Amino acid sequence: MTTDPKLEKLKQILNEIADLDNAMSLLHWDMQCYMPQEGAEARGNQIATIGRLAHENRTSEVLGKLLDDLAPFAAQGDPDSDDVRLIQVTKRQYDKATKVPIDLVVEFSQVTSSAHQVWEQARANNDFESFRPSLEKIFELRRRFADCFAPYDHVYDPLLDEFEPGLKTADVKAIFEALRPRQVELLQAIKARPQVEDAFLHQQYEDAKQWDFGVQVLNQIGYDWKRSRQDRAAHPFTTNFSINDVRITTRIIPDNLGSALFSTLHEGGHAMYELGVNQHYERTPLAGGTSLAIHESQSRMWENLVGRSLPFWQHFYPRLQQTFPAQLGNVSLEAFYKGVNKVEPSLIRVEADEATYNMHVMLRLELEIAVLEGKLAVKDLPEAWNARMQEYLGLTPPNDSKGVLQDVHWSGGMIGYFSTYALGNLVSGQLWECINTDIPDLPDQIRRGEFAALRGWLTEKVHQYGSKYEPQELVKRITGTKIDPAPYLRYLTEKYRSIYGF
Amino acid sequence: MTTDPKLEKLKQILNEIADLDNAMSLLHWDMQCYMPQEGAEARGNQIATIGRLAHENRTSEVLGKLLDDLAPFAAQGDPDSDDVRLIQVTKRQYDKATKVPIDLVVEFSQVTSSAHQVWEQARANNDFESFRPSLEKIFELRRRFADCFAPYDHVYDPLLDEFEPGLKTADVKAIFEALRPRQVELLQAIKARPQVEDAFLHQQYEDAKQWDFGVQVLNQIGYDWKRSRQDRAAHPFTTNFSINDVRITTRIIPDNLGSALFSTLHEGGHAMYELGVNQHYERTPLAGGTSLAIHESQSRMWENLVGRSLPFWQHFYPRLQQTFPAQLGNVSLEAFYKGVNKVEPSLIRVEADEATYNMHVMLRLELEIAVLEGKLAVKDLPEAWNARMQEYLGLTPPNDSKGVLQDVHWSGGMIGYFSTYALGNLVSGQLWECINTDIPDLPDQIRRGEFAALRGWLTEKVHQYGSKYEPQELVKRITGTKIDPAPYLRYLTEKYRSIYGF
Repeated sequence: MTTDPKLEKLKQILNEIADLDNAMSLLHWDMQCYMPQEGAEARGNQIATIGRLAHENRTSEVLGKLLDDLAPFAAQGDPDSDDVRLIQVTKRQYDKATKVPIDLVVEFSQVTSSAHQVWEQARANNDFESFRPSLEKIFELRRRFADCFAPYDHVYDPLLDEFEPGLKTADVKAIFEALRPRQVELLQAIKARPQVEDAFLHQQYEDAKQWDFGVQVLNQIGYDWKRSRQDRAAHPFTTNFSINDVRITTRIIPDNLGSALFSTLHEGGHAMYELGVNQHYERTPLAGGTSLAIHESQSRMWENLVGRSLPFWQHFYPRLQQTFPAQLGNVSLEAFYKGVNKVEPSLIRVEADEATYNMHVMLRLELEIAVLEGKLAVKDLPEAWNARMQEYLGLTPPNDSKGVLQDVHWSGGMIGYFSTYALGNLVSGQLWECINTDIPDLPDQIRRGEFAALRGWLTEKVHQYGSKYEPQELVKRITGTKIDPAPYLRYLTEKYRSIYGF
Repeated sequence: MTTDPKLEKLKQILNEIADLDNAMSLLHWDMQCYMPQEGAEARGNQIATIGRLAHENRTSEVLGKLLDDLAPFAAQGDPDSDDVRLIQVTKRQYDKATKVPIDLVVEFSQVTSSAHQVWEQARANNDFESFRPSLEKIFELRRRFADCFAPYDHVYDPLLDEFEPGLKTADVKAIFEALRPRQVELLQAIKARPQVEDAFLHQQYEDAKQWDFGVQVLNQIGYDWKRSRQDRAAHPFTTNFSINDVRITTRIIPDNLGSALFSTLHEGGHAMYELGVNQHYERTPLAGGTSLAIHESQSRMWENLVGRSLPFWQHFYPRLQQTFPAQLGNVSLEAFYKGVNKVEPSLIRVEADEATYNMHVMLRLELEIAVLEGKLAVKDLPEAWNARMQEYLGLTPPNDSKGVLQDVHWSGGMIGYFSTYALGNLVSGQLWECINTDIPDLPDQIRRGEFAALRGWLTEKVHQYGSKYEPQELVKRITGTKIDPAPYLRYLTEKYRSIYGF
């Protein structure tokens, strides 16, 4: 490590920003997990104050001056060194943060804060019209946000960049153009075959036993409880306040065995990413996963490529049967494996299976882009949604609550977010092919309940780097190519061919 | 409410300081209740950063200037108005905070932070000598702290003032001079009588049933779960992040039924104080209890004057017997009541009964004052401790871990704290006499499990005022006299006369 005093000063400032961000994350975690209901107003004030202080530090002239002073150091140093990358990542974030006027930041925060409640009501009442003015305002504010970064290749670029540093709209469009016809083709092949059975997943499964089984699975895959924990929350999520304090949450539904089980694996995948980051990055912008897509590549890998695989259940199914003998005693391993991989087009994204999930994402991405390009009015979103739903999945939502109003993201202003879910799937497929090349007996290891080699690979290739590399660069360093849908399509096709026999 | 722009500005600054303080309290709460062990280092950094920002705001020139500008407003306004009191309380805190050089604040924080670990080791190893240098340093730093407030009547005054605003060493000495001989006399009368039995409290009591019973008691006394919660922690405590988000913790010991039960009532008493503060004081220095002694008057009242009373158990004992039939089926109400009120001199303060508790406190207070006055060297503390222990309670600690090393307070620099425990007892006695005058049928109400009138009295007379009045002023407003040991002594004498029959 260097002893350049300016670099030390930079790190000190970044450390304090990280402390504020981490305290902020705790305020949110507690709000989701434990806060009594009447504590909400005070919590909002605490979040606003800490957020303001963090923003002030993040955009301070002192920080800007330091980054200018350090520019020659970054230009001349080893471009792959942690220090140079730290300066680059910080500079990138500083430029982004300072380009947006504080008035716009505040207005966006206020509008999205109240829009969330409006959306909740609208969804409950199945009334898009009541949410429409909020959503129009949000799209307008996001367009103004994007304009702070003009000139751009595409108005959607600055929004996408919030979640996927360095990724362009043109890249995403190209990826999805290649993906869409192959996904449609796969789905048609599956639909032509007899359906598999999964009713046994919807018996009554005791809450405490579900919790304990999830903990056993986490233990076995190597979750580190000295540095992490699991709590209950209405919606499962992962957060962290340090590389050594990472927390997941789960939600147990008695008549849906798969829900908590696969969401625990999903969140566990997110958590292991955060836990695997280089300890030297603590309290700097290099800590934390580099993008949502790379994060999803980890969570979706543990949930699906590992957790919905036959070897995984060859190991765990006997224990699951012992835990729930009345419910699963007469269900064979093969039937269970097929059941947890059942493909069925549905209206709701968060309930979608692996074969249809990406279609939900593409629909949203296309609509977001169309609105931002001015080609689609917000008022016409419900109709456009329903038309695409019919085109991609052959279904028409009976109402907007099960259509355009289903997701929380837009009410929070998170436009540009959805594509990361599908990109994460694609990256998980790319990584999976590399892993299986590097660890040829991985299926046998999983069958024996051994996950150390897999974890080690992920830590070495992905986790340790935190945010040092942007997502496309990271994927290319590991796999030799940028984000590419082919491996994931190969994975899906092979898997469903064996399950559905086409 | 006024619209004076300077006053509004003051409130805005105070709101932000409160937000930081509340976030800080959450960081501590989580550390005690849920943080994974490896999260400690990062948490320390978060606490240091938020603490520094709060301190900077608390001592800023902007705040000082505002307070100067508002001095005429405070001088001319209604001296009993919330606004005038807010300015006075803030001015008082500002003057205190700015009189202490930041170097001393930082050194004290560093020394006490490392001294805590040294003390833990010393107590585990029964080795006072290893803790002595830290303790000498802490007393030296506290003396330097006190000197920042010279001239003073007594070097102990500024330390006491940290916990009991406005109270003087001379006051406390006078109170305890009056108290000590009467407590000794009471104890002798009890010791001359046959001992009561409490072995039944030390059978095995199931954890979950203890928890549930405690929750039932909290429900019945009117604890507001929409604005509060209870969690587990190694040491019971109460904290809050808002008037509407107050949290208690408990610790359940299987072979000690009284431990969790009475500590739940104790912490519930603290919590109800915080929950009862005027909502208009939210995010200002007027929120929160006015002093530790007044806080203890609430916790000790619920724990002892209510929770160890015969009417209380006339109501709750049948339910407790139903909960633990194997353990308590053959224990009569009278035997149970006597058992939970057993008096037995012991070495450990936190395990002391009502009749001996104050003796533990007086011992500590006298030693603290003697060291600060330069009349006792830190190295001679163990001997002085043991001598007083023999004098007051007729016991000699077998080692320093059960003597001078038993409490955490000194390692954290909390010198001046102990007396508040005993003062709280005394105030609880004073309030109790007033309450029973105002609510003559209170024992009958308690016997019926009705606590609304008691809660209402406490809210109206004590809780709602938060920190508006200093402790002596508050006690005088309610009872007509300042802190006075006579009512508490009357309460103790009457209670133990009936139990021990002297």
